[in-house]
Amino acid sequence: MFIIEKIQQIEFVDIIEFLGTVAFAISGIRLASAKKFDWFGAFVIGFVTAIGGGTLRDLLLDITPFWLHSSVYLWGTVLAFVIVLCFSKHLVHLNNTIFWFDCIGLGLFVVVGFEKALVLNYPYWVCIFMGMVTGIVGGIARDIFINEIPIVFTQELYAVACIFGGIIFSVLVFFNVDLALSEIIVAISIIAFRIIATKFNLKLPTLNGEDSI
Amino acid sequence: MFIIEKIQQIEFVDIIEFLGTVAFAISGIRLASAKKFDWFGAFVIGFVTAIGGGTLRDLLLDITPFWLHSSVYLWGTVLAFVIVLCFSKHLVHLNNTIFWFDCIGLGLFVVVGFEKALVLNYPYWVCIFMGMVTGIVGGIARDIFINEIPIVFTQELYAVACIFGGIIFSVLVFFNVDLALSEIIVAISIIAFRIIATKFNLKLPTLNGEDSI
Amino acid sequence: MFIIEKIQQIEFVDIIEFLGTVAFAISGIRLASAKKFDWFGAFVIGFVTAIGGGTLRDLLLDITPFWLHSSVYLWGTVLAFVIVLCFSKHLVHLNNTIFWFDCIGLGLFVVVGFEKALVLNYPYWVCIFMGMVTGIVGGIARDIFINEIPIVFTQELYAVACIFGGIIFSVLVFFNVDLALSEIIVAISIIAFRIIATKFNLKLPTLNGEDSI
Repeated sequence: MFIIEKIQQIEFVDIIEFLGTVAFAISGIRLASAKKFDWFGAFVIGFVTAIGGGTLRDLLLDITPFWLHSSVYLWGTVLAFVIVLCFSKHLVHLNNTIFWFDCIGLGLFVVVGFEKALVLNYPYWVCIFMGMVTGIVGGIARDIFINEIPIVFTQELYAVACIFGGIIFSVLVFFNVDLALSEIIVAISIIAFRIIATKFNLKLPTLNGEDSI
Repeated sequence: MFIIEKIQQIEFVDIIEFLGTVAFAISGIRLASAKKFDWFGAFVIGFVTAIGGGTLRDLLLDITPFWLHSSVYLWGTVLAFVIVLCFSKHLVHLNNTIFWFDCIGLGLFVVVGFEKALVLNYPYWVCIFMGMVTGIVGGIARDIFINEIPIVFTQELYAVACIFGGIIFSVLVFFNVDLALSEIIVAISIIAFRIIATKFNLKLPTLNGEDSI
Repeated sequence: MFIIEKIQQIEFVDIIEFLGTVAFAISGIRLASAKKFDWFGAFVIGFVTAIGGGTLRDLLLDITPFWLHSSVYLWGTVLAFVIVLCFSKHLVHLNNTIFWFDCIGLGLFVVVGFEKALVLNYPYWVCIFMGMVTGIVGGIARDIFINEIPIVFTQELYAVACIFGGIIFSVLVFFNVDLALSEIIVAISIIAFRIIATKFNLKLPTLNGEDSI
């Protein structure tokens, strides 16, 4: 009850979620463009990158995919498309800005995904999992569509940041910390984690690859 | 009410939908064969090409995938398989015929997908989206399985034809045009669009690909 | 009723299902390692290989994915990960053991998938299909993630073994054979089929590949 009420209140994060959507869509559109996708293909990849994670989460939780309730995610992708179309040559200089949006978007996506599972009374590990799915699956779908190995499996601590945020969220919920405060703490933790990981180029080890299986 | 009644009537399109299924399955089976898939692999790719779009649509709309209600789509794939098996060397001469079935199938798939969302009272943009998903996702799944970049993202105005048809359908529904008539208009529009696009080799532009992101 | 009761009883197969999960996860983790995935990537591929088939089945049947009810599959993947991490150099010598687990796991996965559809009163062909999906889709997802053509489409009689088992199961259910007995017969049939197919290197033919489509 408490949680559901709170979640309905969090409309103030909608703007930031929108920025996150745009940032995710831009990453998809740019990668698709580099692969010579046409306008339609680039748009779809942008949209899938932005909504893919939340869609798989909602399918697994057996609820209607969130973006069917509102066209705002479609418009976010349109905005991302227009940005890439108009400023593609200058976007490299904006890489830093986009990275920031992407970090903030990731933080919020994880928070939203975690809460969706929490409201449905799933145990913490499912909530953490759903937060992670919301954060990374869009990028995985993007990479499969452009016929690359998903970057999240080989580079950066992107997914670990999501899990890290989810664990913190679990602890905060367990100790009944105020939800709005928890959300902010979790989002900032994820953003901080990613920035530090990127700055110091931290990576997970690989297993001893066996060439012959 | 009006719409649901009508949809239950449209059994006369079942034969054409079956032909569309067969045409979609043939495209999948041929591409899989070219990639040296075995019989099973080719069959699965054919089936996925034929039912993939409707399956994703039904999953998103949270209804049971249409092909679980009837084995006709399975048999359509069997027929497609037998056709490719027996006539593979002559199929090139039938490319024109298959292209026609494929066009007609696409037109009907879009109509069916659009209506499924309409019946569930979704806004027009969701209906257009679901029509498009029904039309193109089978081919996207096919291309991912055979480890190629989905052709719909780089070539032809295939998806645009679906969107074009969906927009026309929305206008017709908005003005309360008779549903059976609307369906025919939409299907013919899509078929005409694709034929013109193919004949004149129309393509969408690509975004300025950035080699270094 | 009779069937549901029986299915709730079959807890004695849980251990073997667990071993099957571990075997499937190991295959995913090893292939991911060979592709230089990091720990996280390898873990995810292992998990997806183990639960992918059952997840698609449950999504299609519109029931909650089985692994959301219990974290045992997650722990099975953790165990698989630890095994590969600690014994990766010795695993080649264990190939035989792993192959056995994999066979047994496949047999059980098919049985479980078939029964899930049967309980929901689907016709036999859907049950056979769901048994097959449970058995092969994890491996297909694994191969798509590591950017390879799914091995099940080009090699071995893996999928045919699933279909073969499903047909036998249908016959046994049709003749009201005791369910527990049927399960054992089906699982053994699948295991035997695979071992024979592997031993004699049986393969399905390919269609006449057309180089120019």
